[in-house]
Amino acid sequence: MDVQTAGEESTITYQQLTDMEREFDDVETDILRYQVRRQLPLFERRHKLISEIRGFWPLVMEQAPPDIDEYIQPSDSNLLVTALTSLYVTHFEAEDGDPRSVAIRFEFDENEYFEDRVIEKKFWHRTSKDGWTGFVSEPVDIKWKEGKDLTEGLLGLAKALWDEEQAAGANGAGSKGKELTPNQKALKDKIEAIGLGGLSFFAWFGYRGPKVSAEESKLATKEEKERRERRGAGEEVSTPKNDDDDEDDEEEEFEIFPSGDQLALAIAEDLWPSAIKYFNQAQEDDALSDASFEDFDDEAGLSQVDSDEDERPSKKRKA
Amino acid sequence: MDVQTAGEESTITYQQLTDMEREFDDVETDILRYQVRRQLPLFERRHKLISEIRGFWPLVMEQAPPDIDEYIQPSDSNLLVTALTSLYVTHFEAEDGDPRSVAIRFEFDENEYFEDRVIEKKFWHRTSKDGWTGFVSEPVDIKWKEGKDLTEGLLGLAKALWDEEQAAGANGAGSKGKELTPNQKALKDKIEAIGLGGLSFFAWFGYRGPKVSAEESKLATKEEKERRERRGAGEEVSTPKNDDDDEDDEEEEFEIFPSGDQLALAIAEDLWPSAIKYFNQAQEDDALSDASFEDFDDEAGLSQVDSDEDERPSKKRKA
Repeated sequence: MDVQTAGEESTITYQQLTDMEREFDDVETDILRYQVRRQLPLFERRHKLISEIRGFWPLVMEQAPPDIDEYIQPSDSNLLVTALTSLYVTHFEAEDGDPRSVAIRFEFDENEYFEDRVIEKKFWHRTSKDGWTGFVSEPVDIKWKEGKDLTEGLLGLAKALWDEEQAAGANGAGSKGKELTPNQKALKDKIEAIGLGGLSFFAWFGYRGPKVSAEESKLATKEEKERRERRGAGEEVSTPKNDDDDEDDEEEEFEIFPSGDQLALAIAEDLWPSAIKYFNQAQEDDALSDASFEDFDDEAGLSQVDSDEDERPSKKRKA
Repeated sequence: MDVQTAGEESTITYQQLTDMEREFDDVETDILRYQVRRQLPLFERRHKLISEIRGFWPLVMEQAPPDIDEYIQPSDSNLLVTALTSLYVTHFEAEDGDPRSVAIRFEFDENEYFEDRVIEKKFWHRTSKDGWTGFVSEPVDIKWKEGKDLTEGLLGLAKALWDEEQAAGANGAGSKGKELTPNQKALKDKIEAIGLGGLSFFAWFGYRGPKVSAEESKLATKEEKERRERRGAGEEVSTPKNDDDDEDDEEEEFEIFPSGDQLALAIAEDLWPSAIKYFNQAQEDDALSDASFEDFDDEAGLSQVDSDEDERPSKKRKA
């Protein structure tokens, strides 16, 4: 279909514009691979530096931007402030896969909520055969202490259902036309009973995303590129249509944190690289509220650091 | 000064955190250089492709994000819609200078407002000796047709003052303790008379930013890096203080578009790389409002393109 503007038809098609965008995406992935490689030693040094500052990550979380902060409930905040000791983001497929995939690792002190000292969640960047692209993940369980489960059992059920599906394999997956399994029914009932509004940040560990295997993603990416190249060479090649919306709906039914992919992006691409900036902001807020308590040299030093920060133009690279 | 949190002092200083951030900045500049190099051939091909779509850039401007749109007044919009034929952003110092510097070039059809067919504005990314970092520029004049000056004379005065300063050289620059020159007085009076609120987008071509020469910037960058390296090696080295706030204030007095650097960033880092996305959005809006007029095949095609777009996670790289 040709692009049409102001009543005039052009010889350019929407498909050509989409293909152009896909080429930018491919190059952007290469650039990200380069970026990850260049920044890795710096992030390691930063990690060592800030691990010597008690309360660094709790202060950063306190200053988290709205797209993260909106998911942090008061009890989450209480837990994070008292027990979060480390956060680390790794682009674990940067060298031999998709550099957009990220692992987000939290470390905790002993605390009243759960037994775990390390909770890590991985997000694989995948492309489905019908053209969807984004993060898929697996529910990660948390060993809650008695009566302390901030997700009210949702996370445990999401993990149990996931394990059941893995055990059943490809054949047993999906419930189309079948009765719900006990785990599916329990999770569905629980979601209906408590709703997903105001849910704990920790329910995010239950995010799964669409079912797209590594194999499907690899094949879909290869085929999309081939179609694009053939179109570039002048062939007429159409893009396969997405005709299984039903299946997607069914998958979403058992999603306890539907915006989990967005939250992962916000942590990996904003909170993580800008952690020192958020920490400085938190310190400045602190200095302002404790103005009578802290000495004034401290404040002058702080505001100097921060005004440097403010004057630099944003380094956002927008796509 | 040591970092202090929750009443506990750490052995880490704020200076160490700032130095760490500066190292990230340096690497980020290298990454940007790589990015510019990789994307250049794609932007050239995109330019050819979209130059065949009549009204591409006016539609993109129509969908511009709020941080650009807020500066586009109704008469600017009228001019852009009827006459803007091309927009092109170049990182003109990418290979042998600062890859953050950008030139933004607009091309226009013959129009009722001005004689120019090409208006280009350059932004040099500079660092001052007192630590400021950002865009500096030079006022660019526009040959307005009789009675059609959208800036009500401001842009012409800003350019005349700039030329006067250049002619006077370093000795004559600045008016500290001196009387205002006629151009300075005229510009100051004009700013007071008409105010800078609701000013035309085209006043942006008058942005100049702080006075930081290429030489000062080069030296400041080198010295900052040396201080950082000496601190890294354990020496005590302090950062020079910014003690000429007065001078900065004086410079701002003749700035007709104070947020010109932010607008340049928004165009270079958002509108420009995401132009096809904004164009598709404009087409979709159009299709929605003309639903009874356009044929439905067109709409289906359009919304498919756009839903692809929406499902991909944001590629923003936040600093």
